[in-house]
Amino acid sequence: MSYLVIVKIGGNVIDDDHALERFVRDFSTIKGEKILVHGGGRIATTIADKLGIKSQYVDGRRITDSATIDVVTMVYAGLVNKRIVAMLQKHNCNAIGLSGADANVIAGSKRPVKEIDYGFVGDIDPNSVAVDSLKKFLDMRLVPVVAPIVHDQNGQLLNTNADTIASVLAVALSRWYQVKLVYCFEKQGVLASVEDDSTVVTTLTKEIYNDLRVSGNLFSGIIPKIDNAFNAIDDGVSEVLIGSASDLLINLTPENKGTSITR
Amino acid sequence: MSYLVIVKIGGNVIDDDHALERFVRDFSTIKGEKILVHGGGRIATTIADKLGIKSQYVDGRRITDSATIDVVTMVYAGLVNKRIVAMLQKHNCNAIGLSGADANVIAGSKRPVKEIDYGFVGDIDPNSVAVDSLKKFLDMRLVPVVAPIVHDQNGQLLNTNADTIASVLAVALSRWYQVKLVYCFEKQGVLASVEDDSTVVTTLTKEIYNDLRVSGNLFSGIIPKIDNAFNAIDDGVSEVLIGSASDLLINLTPENKGTSITR
Repeated sequence: MSYLVIVKIGGNVIDDDHALERFVRDFSTIKGEKILVHGGGRIATTIADKLGIKSQYVDGRRITDSATIDVVTMVYAGLVNKRIVAMLQKHNCNAIGLSGADANVIAGSKRPVKEIDYGFVGDIDPNSVAVDSLKKFLDMRLVPVVAPIVHDQNGQLLNTNADTIASVLAVALSRWYQVKLVYCFEKQGVLASVEDDSTVVTTLTKEIYNDLRVSGNLFSGIIPKIDNAFNAIDDGVSEVLIGSASDLLINLTPENKGTSITR
Repeated sequence: MSYLVIVKIGGNVIDDDHALERFVRDFSTIKGEKILVHGGGRIATTIADKLGIKSQYVDGRRITDSATIDVVTMVYAGLVNKRIVAMLQKHNCNAIGLSGADANVIAGSKRPVKEIDYGFVGDIDPNSVAVDSLKKFLDMRLVPVVAPIVHDQNGQLLNTNADTIASVLAVALSRWYQVKLVYCFEKQGVLASVEDDSTVVTTLTKEIYNDLRVSGNLFSGIIPKIDNAFNAIDDGVSEVLIGSASDLLINLTPENKGTSITR
């Protein structure tokens, strides 16, 4: 089984030109097969504001009306995706930008309306991943750069979560590759105490995770990321690591500085 | 040699939801290998206006400053491209959206500054076309949908002309395919007299073209399109046709209603 690295970067790197340049240069040096999944960053909100589209949130989740899906499509699958692709090409990394609609790589369905109508937000269908096409791209030495926009196979684009995209891709490809999934974010790893950067949890098991949740010292934003990480591990992904974007290369070695998610 | 159809659509179709729906449905029914190249439409100007970015033109050509290249990248390679890809997927056409940076399919260089600085406008390098990757995509039964944005292989995205992209792709692929290139626009074909829709020139040779230019009755906007068409024919493309987007399917038959460009 050959080795595949899937890296997810979030908005904090995308919003910082210097950090993004550095990250892209580091990522381009990873040998072998790899995939980059990126989030959106604040730029979609900035552009929506300028266009007079009000960004609405319920419990921290964006409500995606029809004007907003247009903005996130342009920004995530257009501006951010193509900027990263062009930067990778500069470093001789043959990147290919993809939304879920491209080559039908990932489909989802519009989240059903219950108490809240999230609008054009997609729940990803893990069985929809076009593993054959992704394998062929990887065989061509292409490096997929995936934006968090999917489609419903009926013409509608849907906004979705990049952490989940990364986890779903990792699981789908783990039948064919030994997959290492790396979530990059602004901290060095999962912190036992959210205020203290020296409390990186080196190895996170479900037991430790449960204890940390009970302690109430965990940063709430990290919880969905950890849940995605455990889902990936449970479903066949070899290794999942949560760490800092600036430590990407060291985090791919056994001397990593991040948090390893283990069963 | 297998057969390849390359179709280019312009802004007038993209700006009209109904026309675009119809065009996409028609295009999806074309059998065999095919590529779609699209222009931008007025939406980039509308969005630039709303964002407070002034669109500047010299002799009808947009000056692309750094704010404008961001807008055209988001709109052409993001919104327009992904919308078309999702619509094609709905019709079971396995589209894959590409800018020139994706898989390094088309590179260009920033137009040198002479009297006018066009900004981030690219002159396409015809030798840069990644024929091998495009062939592999076509072998995978994928349908490339190409936006008129290229890169300089040094991290910079560049705005370019979709007619030229279509012609350059057609020429590069004509060594491997029998290529039919169809330019779709708002008229039924090249009109001998710009005001009279009944004056479609059925067959356009260089001699007839020269006569028409001398007559002064040709629509000036069609001249670069015809020049691109003759370049394609001169460089190995089997057939070039200029016709209406709404006549796409009939224009792929010998009973076409458009203008055939011939040597």
